[in-house]
Amino acid sequence: MLDVQSYIAGRWVGPDADARMIEDAVTGADFARAGGPLDPAELIAHATTRGGPALRAMTFHDRARMLKALALHLRNHRPALYDLSYHSGGTLADHKIDVDGGIGTMLVIASKGRREMPDGKVYIDGAPEMLGREGQFLGKHVCVPLQGVAVHINAFNFPVWGMLEKLAPTLLAGVPAIVKPATATSYIAEACMRIMLESGILPEGAVQLVSGGLGDMLDRLGPQDAVAFTGSAATALKLRGNDNIQRNSVRFTAEQDSLNASVLGIDAAPDSPEFDLFVKEAQREITAKAGQKCTATRRLIVPEALIDPVAKALSARLAKVVIGDPRDEATRMGALVSNAQKRDVLEKLALLEGEAVRLHGDPEALKGPGAFLTPMLLRCDDPDGAARPHDTEAFGPVATLMPYRDTAHAAELANRGEGSLVASVFTHDPGVAREMVLTSAAFHGRIYFNNRDSAAEATGHGSPLPHMVHGGPGRAGGGEELGGVRGVLHYMQRTAIQGSPDLLTAITGKYVPGATVHDGPGHPFRRTFDALEIGESLTTEPRVVTLEDIETFAGFTGDTFYAHMDEDAAARNPFFPGRVAHGYLILSFAAGLFVSPEEGPVLANTGLDNLRFLAPLSPGEAITVRLTVKHKTPRTDEYGEIRWDVRVTKDNGEAVAEYDLLTMVARG
Amino acid sequence: MLDVQSYIAGRWVGPDADARMIEDAVTGADFARAGGPLDPAELIAHATTRGGPALRAMTFHDRARMLKALALHLRNHRPALYDLSYHSGGTLADHKIDVDGGIGTMLVIASKGRREMPDGKVYIDGAPEMLGREGQFLGKHVCVPLQGVAVHINAFNFPVWGMLEKLAPTLLAGVPAIVKPATATSYIAEACMRIMLESGILPEGAVQLVSGGLGDMLDRLGPQDAVAFTGSAATALKLRGNDNIQRNSVRFTAEQDSLNASVLGIDAAPDSPEFDLFVKEAQREITAKAGQKCTATRRLIVPEALIDPVAKALSARLAKVVIGDPRDEATRMGALVSNAQKRDVLEKLALLEGEAVRLHGDPEALKGPGAFLTPMLLRCDDPDGAARPHDTEAFGPVATLMPYRDTAHAAELANRGEGSLVASVFTHDPGVAREMVLTSAAFHGRIYFNNRDSAAEATGHGSPLPHMVHGGPGRAGGGEELGGVRGVLHYMQRTAIQGSPDLLTAITGKYVPGATVHDGPGHPFRRTFDALEIGESLTTEPRVVTLEDIETFAGFTGDTFYAHMDEDAAARNPFFPGRVAHGYLILSFAAGLFVSPEEGPVLANTGLDNLRFLAPLSPGEAITVRLTVKHKTPRTDEYGEIRWDVRVTKDNGEAVAEYDLLTMVARG
Repeated sequence: MLDVQSYIAGRWVGPDADARMIEDAVTGADFARAGGPLDPAELIAHATTRGGPALRAMTFHDRARMLKALALHLRNHRPALYDLSYHSGGTLADHKIDVDGGIGTMLVIASKGRREMPDGKVYIDGAPEMLGREGQFLGKHVCVPLQGVAVHINAFNFPVWGMLEKLAPTLLAGVPAIVKPATATSYIAEACMRIMLESGILPEGAVQLVSGGLGDMLDRLGPQDAVAFTGSAATALKLRGNDNIQRNSVRFTAEQDSLNASVLGIDAAPDSPEFDLFVKEAQREITAKAGQKCTATRRLIVPEALIDPVAKALSARLAKVVIGDPRDEATRMGALVSNAQKRDVLEKLALLEGEAVRLHGDPEALKGPGAFLTPMLLRCDDPDGAARPHDTEAFGPVATLMPYRDTAHAAELANRGEGSLVASVFTHDPGVAREMVLTSAAFHGRIYFNNRDSAAEATGHGSPLPHMVHGGPGRAGGGEELGGVRGVLHYMQRTAIQGSPDLLTAITGKYVPGATVHDGPGHPFRRTFDALEIGESLTTEPRVVTLEDIETFAGFTGDTFYAHMDEDAAARNPFFPGRVAHGYLILSFAAGLFVSPEEGPVLANTGLDNLRFLAPLSPGEAITVRLTVKHKTPRTDEYGEIRWDVRVTKDNGEAVAEYDLLTMVARG
Repeated sequence: MLDVQSYIAGRWVGPDADARMIEDAVTGADFARAGGPLDPAELIAHATTRGGPALRAMTFHDRARMLKALALHLRNHRPALYDLSYHSGGTLADHKIDVDGGIGTMLVIASKGRREMPDGKVYIDGAPEMLGREGQFLGKHVCVPLQGVAVHINAFNFPVWGMLEKLAPTLLAGVPAIVKPATATSYIAEACMRIMLESGILPEGAVQLVSGGLGDMLDRLGPQDAVAFTGSAATALKLRGNDNIQRNSVRFTAEQDSLNASVLGIDAAPDSPEFDLFVKEAQREITAKAGQKCTATRRLIVPEALIDPVAKALSARLAKVVIGDPRDEATRMGALVSNAQKRDVLEKLALLEGEAVRLHGDPEALKGPGAFLTPMLLRCDDPDGAARPHDTEAFGPVATLMPYRDTAHAAELANRGEGSLVASVFTHDPGVAREMVLTSAAFHGRIYFNNRDSAAEATGHGSPLPHMVHGGPGRAGGGEELGGVRGVLHYMQRTAIQGSPDLLTAITGKYVPGATVHDGPGHPFRRTFDALEIGESLTTEPRVVTLEDIETFAGFTGDTFYAHMDEDAAARNPFFPGRVAHGYLILSFAAGLFVSPEEGPVLANTGLDNLRFLAPLSPGEAITVRLTVKHKTPRTDEYGEIRWDVRVTKDNGEAVAEYDLLTMVARG
């Protein structure tokens, strides 16, 4: 008997006499047990007094590096997790979706933390807002970590991916987590958690594990806490309705099963690549993880002229699926997670068969102790009149085929799910794609398009990616996870900050226009990345731009645009008083004014952002440049990126151009 | 007797026999009545079958223009609204906060719609995500309008601002609204709504008004609907707990009263500008709208050494406040909205007085029929031990002064409110500002800093601005409104879209890298804004960049940076093989290659975004440029902005640089 333990306040405990038995999906025999009493207050206190402060003392980059190390450590321990996962009924391919998918998700989130978040403690959301005419009172939105705990309540089907896809954004945000895996596969989550903890990479209190019930934990959460739930709509409803959750406005994110649709475009001929792609993905969605995916396709919506060919092709593919012991390499589909789950699927199947005809599969075919089931394909010829195919989910290898008349009708049927995690559309027609988005996107958290162009790289209808939001409206729970930094922000408070440029600069670690600048101890190009300070600034001598300069530049570059060369034509232009200097001439002269040419810490000009030309420059006018350190982002141990605020002005102070200049600069 | 009507499905109705009486705040006499039965299904159907489709047929820019016209129309009708508003007890200054504030909010939202949203039907959230190595499968996040209805439940204190600050983002999103004003001031909201409807600017069904109860409307909402509530925590709890709201994951945003704090920084001496600013704003927060603002300061947190001077200065200011008939020009503070409201404030005041001493004000001072009350200043010397000042809100002219030891203690006290709409901090010390944000921002929706630098432009502790998010965690309701485009997105579904570049281009109306490009009928600089098509492209002849070019450019511009001039030094640089061309030379030659110089529709190069240099260019290598229409944004009737995707490549196809070029181009 395998004992599944909890990790509470620094120690592994349980299970005890009240433990629940866990069944092996393949043999149907009990092989593990989990559960026992716990003191929720102890977990919450440990998270908020130990884990939270330790995580908040780190920067986003620190935490991103921690996540990367954790993912690489887990990668070395995959075989143990695969081995254990066979008890849950899946094949090696299924385990890889879970284990490798989870590790990959953590790596992407870590990478985005390094690339898209600052090496600081405050995340900036959006551009500054000028709230006064003189620029001495501005607004910025910043995000800081919640100071409570994140409670993650996970589903049975992806014990590793489901845990890591929630943990990665939470820890990157700087918030400790209490993880409650579903009991049916808690032994896999426990093994994964043990590997993470034994690595020593996480600060104490950053994560805890509850194998078994949460007790009255939800009654103890406050406004700084968050709950992220994945599972059934019925459980979500019970949890989110908790009076304490409601009273304290505790953040509650639900990701529920939904009646996901897959649409074959009206443009797809029977011999088109899209037809084949649709059938192939439909088969994969029905059989991968034996259909136990929140994102699996439940409704196959096809042009009425194609329903027979699709039914035939898909049935033929399903007939070839080898079902059996998942440890057998020939097996393509293993067992459901338990016999209880199998009974539930068969109950839902019976409901569906009240409004649809079974084309493929036999609920009676696979008896015996393991939780095996054949794939089932149903057909419903009156999808407008029917209700079950749109509201009853058999969480197993079951899908229903239905015909549609035109794209508007296809969208209407897809939307009958009243909110889903994902819909897919197989089309090569951009007009069909656009129409589907305009009519249907409001009902789906994700729309996956595939066709001959994208087929080689497409990641699959059923695969949530760390880059893209995962969740959906209505029946799908109304929640959102992942989506890169978006998913991190769910564990942070967005706060509007108003104040003077100096204060905003200090708060965000990023120079805000109007803030005080200061001279450095020398030319900034002679200073290393580590030495340069935010607000350190250089103002150049002026340089007059002559008509000869403009003509020389035009001749040299070939840019003889009329605004630079033809006085009359330029004067007719609504923006110019007459001939004006080239924008690129201004940029080039500006660089000539501010660079310090000798070899030194500045390595390269890597780019430029947000350049705006604010006033035309006429021949004979002079420019002066001010270069100010705006933001610093370490990239490697050798160098980092300095973002400079550059302002080009005329003698009278009028702004000619402003931009952010990016350079790579050697460190200490 | 003034009859307050409802506007339902195109007609004005009610009130009927069940109408509720409304009191004049100044006289205490009933002067208006509102309420009557209604059929919620009729309102919902009218909104979703008439208003929704009409709004969704418009682009963001169409709707922004509609809002601007509406706001300008309202601006011409302000005197009527001021006149009516005197019944609610406020002064002309109070009415202007409500009426002018609401109109200004609508104008800012309209302006942001034009400047920050596309002239299309799909809003793009964030950059494309490359999901495959070859770039033929990408991800984008898009937002589309919800297809249901927004139900706005507003508070009594700002009948115009409260209505317009919710309506503007909702209508800009493309969602129809049903507005339910608080009965106590419904006559002002009704008058404002009548002015809007009589303008003829709004499509039928875009807005409806319910003066009185909503019946069982919340039981009828679905996953495409949204509720935005402003008011008390108790009412919010009742509404959000509605079983149907929970079951359908109906979006529910609550903005509740909160125990907002104002902190005088530890750096502020008694003779500092910050001390004076703090006292002045405290007085204003206590007396404006007679303290009936969700954002009003309820807790004044001051350094313990300064509590006596602050108490003295603030009491002196409060003593000078003239209370009386709001129509009298000398009056600085009018009446509360009703005698019921006055009784509620006095009950809460009694609770507060159990833990705090009253320094100023007298609950017995102003008897008589109107709902008048003096300002009240309390002092609590044990803010750590006390509970009431942190959890009991007297929604009137009442605030409690309390001492703190150090900045950490000030943050701890501010956070005792367990979630607020706004906290303010009066400090001139950037370190204090940063510490307050790190320790406290997670507890507040907004932090307002003010000091000697920002005082002349600062907009006030209590003023939510359309640019900044308004809402807060925990006790403040956990909701968020406004914040520019952020507030619009609350009425839209964010959907992750995955697919080929061609499909993503068609869906978003913006060229996605990797999508098919095509030649136009001529050079794109010879084509007008209206004629140019997304994906229309020009590829130039190649141009070799010689060492002589590099030296000429260096000499001409003055940019003699070593990477261009010194072979050995350049080769020591980790990024370069030896001397390389200047980035600005590449940009300038690129322009020389793609411009068509003669006078024509292209008016000006206005800017450049997201420039990245991707590979160094050595002397003797050639560049070729591809210019593609990426995005079009009309700016006036005369011209629009064309955003070009520019790619500079070598002969071997290697990318040298890529950027977005912005030009202004004449229309048709």
